[in-house]
Amino acid sequence: MKKVKIGMLGLGTVGSGVYKTLKRFDNVEIVKISVKNIDKPRNIEGLDESILTTDVYSIINDPEIDIFVEVIGGVNPAWEYISAAIKAGKHIVTANKELLAKKGKELFELAEENNRVVLYEAAIAGGIPLIMPLKTILAGNDITKIEAILNGTTNYILTKMDVEGASYNDVLKEAQELGYAETDPTGDVEGFDAMYKITTLSTIAFGQRVDVNKVYREGISKVRAEDMKAANELGYKIKLVAIARICEDGRVDVRVHPTLVPKKATLAHINYVTNAVGMSGYPIGDIVLSGPGAGEFPTASSVIGDILNIAAEIETTDYPLPMMRCKHSDDANIVPISETYNKYYISITAPNNKGVIGKIGTVCGNKNISVSSIMQKGVSENNTADITVITEVCKEADIQAAISELDGCNINSLIRVM
Amino acid sequence: MKKVKIGMLGLGTVGSGVYKTLKRFDNVEIVKISVKNIDKPRNIEGLDESILTTDVYSIINDPEIDIFVEVIGGVNPAWEYISAAIKAGKHIVTANKELLAKKGKELFELAEENNRVVLYEAAIAGGIPLIMPLKTILAGNDITKIEAILNGTTNYILTKMDVEGASYNDVLKEAQELGYAETDPTGDVEGFDAMYKITTLSTIAFGQRVDVNKVYREGISKVRAEDMKAANELGYKIKLVAIARICEDGRVDVRVHPTLVPKKATLAHINYVTNAVGMSGYPIGDIVLSGPGAGEFPTASSVIGDILNIAAEIETTDYPLPMMRCKHSDDANIVPISETYNKYYISITAPNNKGVIGKIGTVCGNKNISVSSIMQKGVSENNTADITVITEVCKEADIQAAISELDGCNINSLIRVM
Repeated sequence: MKKVKIGMLGLGTVGSGVYKTLKRFDNVEIVKISVKNIDKPRNIEGLDESILTTDVYSIINDPEIDIFVEVIGGVNPAWEYISAAIKAGKHIVTANKELLAKKGKELFELAEENNRVVLYEAAIAGGIPLIMPLKTILAGNDITKIEAILNGTTNYILTKMDVEGASYNDVLKEAQELGYAETDPTGDVEGFDAMYKITTLSTIAFGQRVDVNKVYREGISKVRAEDMKAANELGYKIKLVAIARICEDGRVDVRVHPTLVPKKATLAHINYVTNAVGMSGYPIGDIVLSGPGAGEFPTASSVIGDILNIAAEIETTDYPLPMMRCKHSDDANIVPISETYNKYYISITAPNNKGVIGKIGTVCGNKNISVSSIMQKGVSENNTADITVITEVCKEADIQAAISELDGCNINSLIRVM
Repeated sequence: MKKVKIGMLGLGTVGSGVYKTLKRFDNVEIVKISVKNIDKPRNIEGLDESILTTDVYSIINDPEIDIFVEVIGGVNPAWEYISAAIKAGKHIVTANKELLAKKGKELFELAEENNRVVLYEAAIAGGIPLIMPLKTILAGNDITKIEAILNGTTNYILTKMDVEGASYNDVLKEAQELGYAETDPTGDVEGFDAMYKITTLSTIAFGQRVDVNKVYREGISKVRAEDMKAANELGYKIKLVAIARICEDGRVDVRVHPTLVPKKATLAHINYVTNAVGMSGYPIGDIVLSGPGAGEFPTASSVIGDILNIAAEIETTDYPLPMMRCKHSDDANIVPISETYNKYYISITAPNNKGVIGKIGTVCGNKNISVSSIMQKGVSENNTADITVITEVCKEADIQAAISELDGCNINSLIRVM
């Protein structure tokens, strides 16, 4: 059997999972791996160290290599190497969500010009079968809505806060000690990771290019233990939800922010590092795909799936995987967050004078905001009252204006409700 | 653009969904539909009645037609037409779970001999993307376990029994009136439908042919409202679960039966006509795919997905969809139900003499069955006691032997526990 030859860039967590798992298949073979430091001790069973190199171009320029696997992450230098590899005739498998979100258009145009495919199942929702199903068996659908938990670190932190009643800072520290959060956790906790993923996922699902710079993003670092508790009492869980939907006017609403999810929704039960993607469309209706969103082996499952599919098709055709290509070029018209409509959870600390509930009601009324529920609990020692408001659906600009008019009140939290 | 021409056999619920939805795509076209009765009034918007025929062979023998879509169900005459269509050079798309379970081996061998593909996404779990993901992006995995809810009718009945505390017969009658169950509900309620589906699903997932005649099957018609209530109190829901797993000795355990599912498991929350498929494997870990398991439009989504994938590939290659082919020929060695190991829920009505709990304990002990919990509630007017037992994991043959020794006791229910 002819073996399809593979060169890989990177041998970190994902790369070593791919190396170990791919050895079980006899129609594909990793023949070169580019690493930064060739002498770094590596604990990878059965690793043939003779295939390691520090010269990426020895892979890119090797005519025997058919598939270039990129698992280093980040835009630079990944983009330089991937674009050179495509021009050199290689098909690409990447797990690089940031590159896809920021360079997707150039990447897919370059791939089509060179009749090469770029697969990236591992970049979004780790091991969950998502991109290939969307582009193949779900191709007959108009997808109109995605609601997803796409970041394991933040879902772990929020689950722990919920289960233990602990504060964000305490749980973050514990997550860092356990390796679930990085030393600089910004990329995860401030929602950048989920933003990159929903940018590419919505681009594919809607067939319109979503500009990552126009995606609204809000992280979880301001979510308080008190919000978690209040949400529970009201019948919700707080999750970092990535949302993308086609509006009635054809514009596209894409964003990532903490969200109160009703307990009866599937996403409310997706806990710890598990990811889940809910999608709605015609003719299919609603589906939910859930599973491990990260980790050495789940991610390897997706990288290897991409590799095996390219390998099978290039044996028999010069135009492999027609369904997996990205040919749309329309730019999505993104709705600014101020023009979106949502329900809101608002936590307010107010001076405990008799008129404060009335004032909140009046300010909301003046902005056309209907209040769904309002709850005041006791009065604290310093004579302030904690008030929790849930609104009906209203315009983001109106809620922001209303809040700015609540002078004298302290707005602890404003969280959108699913 | 060249249109790929399609002939369809059947224009019932699924067929009309396919016809309506496929009109949105300009690279494929249904040119002939074979129906039993051409004069039957049909309420299908925009149907071109001139393409209807009663002569299936006018489709099979039309050299212009590339894809033969079969949506009539049943083994005969579907097998005759499909095999003739393959020999005539057509690719096949079918939603026929019974045919796949009973004739899968012959079907896929015939297809390979003729270099034609047979796709059947709609046959198992309706709209849920399952077969194509398993054969493509998950191809790098060794799947070792499947636990699935694959029949919407029984899940609807069990959900209603749970929510309303109603009896099986009352809910079945209501389901029949609403069209969720057929006049003769046997195929659904006795587990045949789920058995056909898990037979094919496990064959694909494990890469070994599962003989449908060796799959253990038990329906839901004996599940009592009292079992539902007791299960709830013990922290479970009762679901008709299709199970397939690779045992430690390499044998394959495949079966369909009512199962007590712990409330913390995802399957416990899959309600009404929704289906869900949980799979475990290496390297991926655990995933759950859920969505609509039946219905005109979800099923159409899968049929159309299959059609679009065949259409895209036959434009560019003479060996389309290499990953979707079924090439394994090993027969699975199926474990008989008597040799499986399970936990059990047992409901017993016993004469209320002092020794009965002791007797149950002694009989179980003699058969190496550990009791996890035993609960006796009150004593009824006729001086009998209702006793609920949950066992630890034990052998099916032992539990059956133990039950046969409980003379004088009435065994109301014996249900396996997940």
